[in-house]
Amino acid sequence: MSEKEQAPLREIRINPIVPSESVLVATARAMRPRKDEEPAPRDTRRHVERCPFCQGNEAMTPPTIMAVPGEENWQIRMVENLYPVLGETAGGALTFGLQQAIDGYGRHEVIIDNAVHGIAIHEMDEAHLALLFGVYRDRMAQLYASDSRIRYVLVFKNFGPAAGASIAHTHSQIIAMPVVPENLHNELLNSRVHYQKYNQCIFCSLIDEALTFEATIYDRVSGEIRRKINVGQYVVERGEHFIAIKPFASRYEWEVHILPLQHDSDFLNISDAQRADLARVMRRTMARLDAVVGGVQYNYFLHSLPRSEAYADCQSGFHWHLEICPRTSIPTGFELGSGLFVNTISPEDAAQQLREVSLES
Amino acid sequence: MSEKEQAPLREIRINPIVPSESVLVATARAMRPRKDEEPAPRDTRRHVERCPFCQGNEAMTPPTIMAVPGEENWQIRMVENLYPVLGETAGGALTFGLQQAIDGYGRHEVIIDNAVHGIAIHEMDEAHLALLFGVYRDRMAQLYASDSRIRYVLVFKNFGPAAGASIAHTHSQIIAMPVVPENLHNELLNSRVHYQKYNQCIFCSLIDEALTFEATIYDRVSGEIRRKINVGQYVVERGEHFIAIKPFASRYEWEVHILPLQHDSDFLNISDAQRADLARVMRRTMARLDAVVGGVQYNYFLHSLPRSEAYADCQSGFHWHLEICPRTSIPTGFELGSGLFVNTISPEDAAQQLREVSLES
Repeated sequence: MSEKEQAPLREIRINPIVPSESVLVATARAMRPRKDEEPAPRDTRRHVERCPFCQGNEAMTPPTIMAVPGEENWQIRMVENLYPVLGETAGGALTFGLQQAIDGYGRHEVIIDNAVHGIAIHEMDEAHLALLFGVYRDRMAQLYASDSRIRYVLVFKNFGPAAGASIAHTHSQIIAMPVVPENLHNELLNSRVHYQKYNQCIFCSLIDEALTFEATIYDRVSGEIRRKINVGQYVVERGEHFIAIKPFASRYEWEVHILPLQHDSDFLNISDAQRADLARVMRRTMARLDAVVGGVQYNYFLHSLPRSEAYADCQSGFHWHLEICPRTSIPTGFELGSGLFVNTISPEDAAQQLREVSLES
Repeated sequence: MSEKEQAPLREIRINPIVPSESVLVATARAMRPRKDEEPAPRDTRRHVERCPFCQGNEAMTPPTIMAVPGEENWQIRMVENLYPVLGETAGGALTFGLQQAIDGYGRHEVIIDNAVHGIAIHEMDEAHLALLFGVYRDRMAQLYASDSRIRYVLVFKNFGPAAGASIAHTHSQIIAMPVVPENLHNELLNSRVHYQKYNQCIFCSLIDEALTFEATIYDRVSGEIRRKINVGQYVVERGEHFIAIKPFASRYEWEVHILPLQHDSDFLNISDAQRADLARVMRRTMARLDAVVGGVQYNYFLHSLPRSEAYADCQSGFHWHLEICPRTSIPTGFELGSGLFVNTISPEDAAQQLREVSLES
């Protein structure tokens, strides 16, 4: 590597889909001393007597909504969240002057991802993960069908205390909302504008840039190479149907997005073959993250086309995806005050480190 | 309190200035069990031998930029940040296709707020705080004057590890940026639109709502009272020139904003009398937060009119303010996936709790 390539990177990278979610990549910042704390050891127990999500403790939770393969000896189990953020309401939020509010109607459910208490995603069988994605799909479809007030069903997972998980047993959550989340709304509108302008899905273009482009940028005066973009530089994992990409404008140091290679706006269209491949790409991506970060704690969430007339014209421009956000640093007053995330690891280096992990399978 | 008033609140409150920064207020969520961990005791030492920000260790930092009252026996001292997020650059970020970036030019400085290592804001003299605000003002003015590439100077503070502070010695930071931060940009544009429509600063209207309005909302059918808004319900602290308000749409449970009572878009216009009053309102507000939260860890930041032609027409509509964001919970996949913050304490209750703290002075 030449000296030029080692110079610290310091640039504000614009998120091509939602420019307001931009990031300051400042690699010199990574050199500052951090307390050399070992990450807290992960809770890897298989069964915990008093855990409400462990088998045998079903009475400690609200009743089963869905269980796979069945109520007896379930491997995946869904229940209502005991402390829902959205739920039944008296109806009609009260607004006054500048105090505008929307009634917090909705549903909030927990998916116990696995009967094994402390298992991580990359330790699960691919067949199990495919089942889990099937549960996501089926419950999303049910919730949309059950209630026309539901505008969006958000699936997400918190893993580890740094990611805000308050219960150690591995679980996902589903929140059925009376509004389309603002950040998804922006993705939908901006990708629609891009499609109207260029007749091309911007997510498909990003996949193309990751898979099929190379480029060299020279200095105008000296003719020296200033930057090279290589084929596959942003690819973390590639399956038959899915790709895991390190975004150019990653807000989180180890952020990775998984997208279907073929354009599709709606996660609910996923086929069985695709689910199996998603499980494989997911397991391998999480294994890479776990190896590089060292016991990765993270959030992931699904952004898919809302089931609403208002977004019917977003099908060609929007591309569903799963965003994985490992939580390796705490946002400070700079992030809060500027809205700009600071990322201290170059996304290109991060992608390379993730690719270099050797996986056993 | 009637039963109706005790029913859990569940509503999505729209931020009146930037609707995309809305919040889900879900008070039932506050009842969920949390681990009963005592907050880590704050580092209250007066002097730490090896702390680079303590007196006597000036050689451990970059050279002094500014010292108050003087280099000898300073009480406030400003130095460059050893690991700046923005700084000198080779110039010209390299852009390609969907990879758009802005050169990360700028400055990043640290203000050692006080010679006493572990002192909290509410423990400082008001005279000292007035000096500190003077340092903010003077350095902001210098940075704007020194370099026309600077579009915004952001002053902020991280206090405590939960707020991302990596050095325990109390300090603020100043970052001079080549762009206006996106969230401030949105405040500026939206408040300009409001001014154009209503010939009224929206921040002034919010202060009026807090200070001078009361309202009762009845049920259309039964005539029962559904909600009362009382005079002063959102006021935490009121000085001669400044007011501390609990926003109706608070993203953080204990978030408080401090604003000048008289309209002013630019913090740099602050007079000496105003600085003294700001110091008093700030000290008392932080004392209230510290008492209620118990060793509050927080970020604060200043939003003021950028020194740029592009925002010259925002002077009437924009109102400078300081936002204090205590960090009492960790954002989860819901916040990341939806952009919607979850607040489990009703802002009205929070304001009341803060007002009820009895202060010695």
